[in-house]
Amino acid sequence: MGQDSLPDNGLPAEFGFIARNFRPLAGDGALDLRDDAAVFTPPAGRQIVVAADAMVEGVHFLPDDPPDTVGRKLLRCNLSDLAAMDAVPLGYLLTVSMPPARDDVWFAAFAAGLAQDQKQFGITLLGGDTTSTSGPLVLSLTVLGHVAPGMALRRCGARVGDGIWVTGTIGDGAMGLLARQGRVADPDGFLASRYQLPRPRLGLELAGVATAGMDISDGLVQDLGHMARESGVGAEIGSALVPLSPTVRALGPQWLEHCLAGGDDYELLLAVPPEHEAQLLHHAARRDVPVTRIGQFVAGRGVRVLNESGAEMVLARRGWSHLPSAV
Amino acid sequence: MGQDSLPDNGLPAEFGFIARNFRPLAGDGALDLRDDAAVFTPPAGRQIVVAADAMVEGVHFLPDDPPDTVGRKLLRCNLSDLAAMDAVPLGYLLTVSMPPARDDVWFAAFAAGLAQDQKQFGITLLGGDTTSTSGPLVLSLTVLGHVAPGMALRRCGARVGDGIWVTGTIGDGAMGLLARQGRVADPDGFLASRYQLPRPRLGLELAGVATAGMDISDGLVQDLGHMARESGVGAEIGSALVPLSPTVRALGPQWLEHCLAGGDDYELLLAVPPEHEAQLLHHAARRDVPVTRIGQFVAGRGVRVLNESGAEMVLARRGWSHLPSAV
Repeated sequence: MGQDSLPDNGLPAEFGFIARNFRPLAGDGALDLRDDAAVFTPPAGRQIVVAADAMVEGVHFLPDDPPDTVGRKLLRCNLSDLAAMDAVPLGYLLTVSMPPARDDVWFAAFAAGLAQDQKQFGITLLGGDTTSTSGPLVLSLTVLGHVAPGMALRRCGARVGDGIWVTGTIGDGAMGLLARQGRVADPDGFLASRYQLPRPRLGLELAGVATAGMDISDGLVQDLGHMARESGVGAEIGSALVPLSPTVRALGPQWLEHCLAGGDDYELLLAVPPEHEAQLLHHAARRDVPVTRIGQFVAGRGVRVLNESGAEMVLARRGWSHLPSAV
Repeated sequence: MGQDSLPDNGLPAEFGFIARNFRPLAGDGALDLRDDAAVFTPPAGRQIVVAADAMVEGVHFLPDDPPDTVGRKLLRCNLSDLAAMDAVPLGYLLTVSMPPARDDVWFAAFAAGLAQDQKQFGITLLGGDTTSTSGPLVLSLTVLGHVAPGMALRRCGARVGDGIWVTGTIGDGAMGLLARQGRVADPDGFLASRYQLPRPRLGLELAGVATAGMDISDGLVQDLGHMARESGVGAEIGSALVPLSPTVRALGPQWLEHCLAGGDDYELLLAVPPEHEAQLLHHAARRDVPVTRIGQFVAGRGVRVLNESGAEMVLARRGWSHLPSAV
């Protein structure tokens, strides 16, 4: 909080900062970011879907990640939550707690990235807040969407016999973090870009197709465990069935376990009864989204990962926690 | 981000933390905080109002503020934004970026405070996120409300001749911060409590009564300047008309200027045409909210503060910026 030094226009520094960087992102309902809140008319006959995520510098993104990717990553993670509920995006709110070291040049690029994604995903900024912090940059984003009444996809609907499906490839985000840390090769920057820019799998029209859905953010095995537990079933996947990108395959099989447990995938995990598989493939093809069946839900509890000979793999870890274990 | 150490229940530490502290706050639509997003049916025939604010330890609250007040302060600041738009609260989402030093005991009290306010204001938690940070505690809260179509109160509707009204007393929050810093006396803790727990002025039914409204968060004079500018008018207030609490009055007239420019009031600033004053007084009395006329909107630009002899006061500062002036 800085004491207002009354620059030439008689407005605090914050107003110029918001006007320069964020007002161009504001859309219908945002009231030009000039009021206390945004106002919009909810789409007729639809339910509202809403999710919030925070990202902290040094935890969810690296201090030297390109500024245009940082806001987009958070936006896309939130859009991925909407995708998991089979919802259509409406808009978002963003709060920024900024350390003094981040200057206007950095935020201009940050906002330019958001502008690009707004166009791609057909949404605009509804509101937010900027404040200073003595710590690392913290971003918090709330996304709003809509869905047909009663049709939001839940985690708890998987049934014994449903196939376990994933979109895209698994592990690129986790390997991308290693690549950014110089721990694996990434000659063309594919892995880094997957870590920095997840691809929310919106528009798959999963209502009536999938019985359960969620996005994979904290590691495939751990997140599958959540879906299985919430649904009261067990899960079995084949490690060889899990789709890996050519880049990850080229790095060798020693990274498989890291991919199964790594975070930052932001792909969808779906439960799909066999009789709906054709429909899923049809919808996925229309959106040009690869989908792969990696196993099935079974009676019982927990997640079993089977290797190519059908033996259960023992995993050293299954996913990521956002808090230290001591908490 | 801690590597998952798989405690006894097979869940990361984060899950227990959320289950203990935040699940009891979740209401209808939150899906028990077990899904990727919350889902709710918007009230029929209403518009949605949405606002987001962030608070940073050491900036908006003090490290040793009572934990039960910290979340409530942020919630109330956001509810104050809804009050300014004449909206009815629906629910909220909260993201918490927590430093290692804040333990479960602290967050249990934090959540207990929120639970108390949820009861008072008739809302529940819809969703959110928890993450770790190496910096100070950062909280971000998005509040959702609803309003009759087209009836959200804006900042830009004030007209020449409208009275300038405020709710409650002005400057208690700013003086409360000084009291917390040991810079002024506060024997019964009134000022500290006003700094820690603002009172959102919900339910005043301002539609058709006020022509403009906003909440006073960054200093009366500065915020009045915003309303005047957005409305294309000037404003004149009498310093002696600004309502001060008995506690602040007892501290002496040397604090007046600090009260006029200090932040953290979270009272409403309203433009009310003379012919609606009786209605305003009626609605305010029904909610037991004091309202005071402190001046009027005039032709021209800018804010003039007149002392008791009618001379213009020159203020060293007019309000607070949330960013350092260098930005």
